[in-house]
Amino acid sequence: MRREIAEQGDAVAATLDEVRRRAEDVRAAMIGRRRILFVARGSSDNAAVYGRYLVETQLGVPAGLAAPSVATHYHAALDLSDTLVVTISQSGRTEEIVEVQRWATAHGAATVAVSNDAKSPLATEADVPLTTRAGTERAVPATKSYTSQLAALAGLAATLDGGADLWPQLERTPGEVTRLEQAEEGVAAAVDALEASEERLVTGRGLTFGTALEVALKLEETCLQPVRGLSYADLRHGPIAVVGPGLTAVVVAAQDGPMLAPLVELAGDLTARGAHVLTVGGDATLAAASAYHVPGPDLPEPVTPIALIVPAQLIVESLARRLGLDPDAPRGLSKVTTTDPT
Amino acid sequence: MRREIAEQGDAVAATLDEVRRRAEDVRAAMIGRRRILFVARGSSDNAAVYGRYLVETQLGVPAGLAAPSVATHYHAALDLSDTLVVTISQSGRTEEIVEVQRWATAHGAATVAVSNDAKSPLATEADVPLTTRAGTERAVPATKSYTSQLAALAGLAATLDGGADLWPQLERTPGEVTRLEQAEEGVAAAVDALEASEERLVTGRGLTFGTALEVALKLEETCLQPVRGLSYADLRHGPIAVVGPGLTAVVVAAQDGPMLAPLVELAGDLTARGAHVLTVGGDATLAAASAYHVPGPDLPEPVTPIALIVPAQLIVESLARRLGLDPDAPRGLSKVTTTDPT
Repeated sequence: MRREIAEQGDAVAATLDEVRRRAEDVRAAMIGRRRILFVARGSSDNAAVYGRYLVETQLGVPAGLAAPSVATHYHAALDLSDTLVVTISQSGRTEEIVEVQRWATAHGAATVAVSNDAKSPLATEADVPLTTRAGTERAVPATKSYTSQLAALAGLAATLDGGADLWPQLERTPGEVTRLEQAEEGVAAAVDALEASEERLVTGRGLTFGTALEVALKLEETCLQPVRGLSYADLRHGPIAVVGPGLTAVVVAAQDGPMLAPLVELAGDLTARGAHVLTVGGDATLAAASAYHVPGPDLPEPVTPIALIVPAQLIVESLARRLGLDPDAPRGLSKVTTTDPT
Repeated sequence: MRREIAEQGDAVAATLDEVRRRAEDVRAAMIGRRRILFVARGSSDNAAVYGRYLVETQLGVPAGLAAPSVATHYHAALDLSDTLVVTISQSGRTEEIVEVQRWATAHGAATVAVSNDAKSPLATEADVPLTTRAGTERAVPATKSYTSQLAALAGLAATLDGGADLWPQLERTPGEVTRLEQAEEGVAAAVDALEASEERLVTGRGLTFGTALEVALKLEETCLQPVRGLSYADLRHGPIAVVGPGLTAVVVAAQDGPMLAPLVELAGDLTARGAHVLTVGGDATLAAASAYHVPGPDLPEPVTPIALIVPAQLIVESLARRLGLDPDAPRGLSKVTTTDPT
């Protein structure tokens, strides 16, 4: 896992190159389509959450996440003739996702498959295979395959973006990912804090909400500890009642954008309720509002998630070792995941 | 809370009557629209999850859940001229939801507002106010307002259903809700199991996934204990790795439908991993696969959620008292919820 974390800058750069090569096919697939529907599970689903916010906020195109069982178990007859369906699976062999893609095609959708294997069923059956260039990922927890998926989705959005604002931002991401792979500032203290806490939750909002979900999943999978990922808003709406001493709240944020000020305020509120706040990313104001801080990327909010996960991966990997666990092969997880046992 | 649980059969019946009175307006709002987008937070969001599955599986109309911050913080310019937007808020005064509804109207959507107050801004500003008839809800945890929302959403779907299969099913729900309000079978043992457990999670899938989220939220809000609601599929995809002794897994299910067999299998797997499985609903096979069982409604799957939550509410209310807590006024929650502090 540690070595694969360090390969992400190259994987992101190679994936962006691949998307550029597919630009014409991607634009052709979107012709006559009014919305984008993402289909994924697990880490890929956290990438899809980012894709959804990016497409809606930057392209102004309605987007959403599919409920796979609507296809696989209820066999619903939805008219998807106005829809571009984007499936996401590292292996391209997760049977449920392949099945949903076939269903989408049969119901009129155009399909783009984001996978790490151009020979997988997901890639070969899609209208447009968009292959991430992560290389072989050996550790069970997704790292470079996840960041490559983010890059592919951001590249897809940039390709469909009439305004063309996103490509210049994206070109800065491989460098920031590479820089953060080696950044150690605050990591050891963050690991101490998480190790000492009785409970953990992770929160973010908007474009970094998917990052919050991914950090929670990584902490849970890798460290075998239950961790919840919650949007800022859902946390405020109810569960904040159970926040108190013994909890470490991880807040993930971009250094700019409309979510920064509310997240700074949230960090203050969580601290007032006795939680230990660990911020990853954000700016100096957010750092000042937290007990522990790990710096994030120097990038604008729309592309921040591609690099923001990297310091969190370093924390998770180090925490797993501290706990005497093997970060490369957590208990109970296999690499190609099936939703229903075969 | 206990008294309001017992008022739900009447509230559901009165709400269905109200939907029937609005049938023509609801059908008119859908003319020329190709999809339905739900907007909500908290318990109302759990109702929206049910609405989304119901609309996609029973009507074959693409549906989804809005990301409110796309409107309130990013001010995205989405073309919603093909969309019916259904907002859901008990008070009709949750500022964030009112703001999203205004944004939806400005971007071309038709709007239906499901609220419990016909004079609220949400109701008065919507194209079609669909007022739940729950009466005044005094306990902070939503019970009758939630089941009334489910009834309103199911009534909305039934109104838009060309096949007209749903209304006859819906007419059976008030009687089943009323019957379950008084059903005590298995409740005390379930409370014992939850009290003794170190961790809790709740799972369901498809049409009962929203119920799983609501049971988790109620356990958390009312009993001040962190509880996760997970779809069966997401649980299988990763977090099942952290399932083990000390965990009580609550599984909510309908007595029929395509999810029953996979949920029976899941109950067996969770038991094999050392978890205590408490099932709410399902059939005799599911009961046989669980350590604790509380019977659910005798209803077909599409309308099951309207009554399935009732035994879970009885468990939560009783557990709160057992823990020495006040189920009517949990710490840290207020009735009209604001996402951002005012």
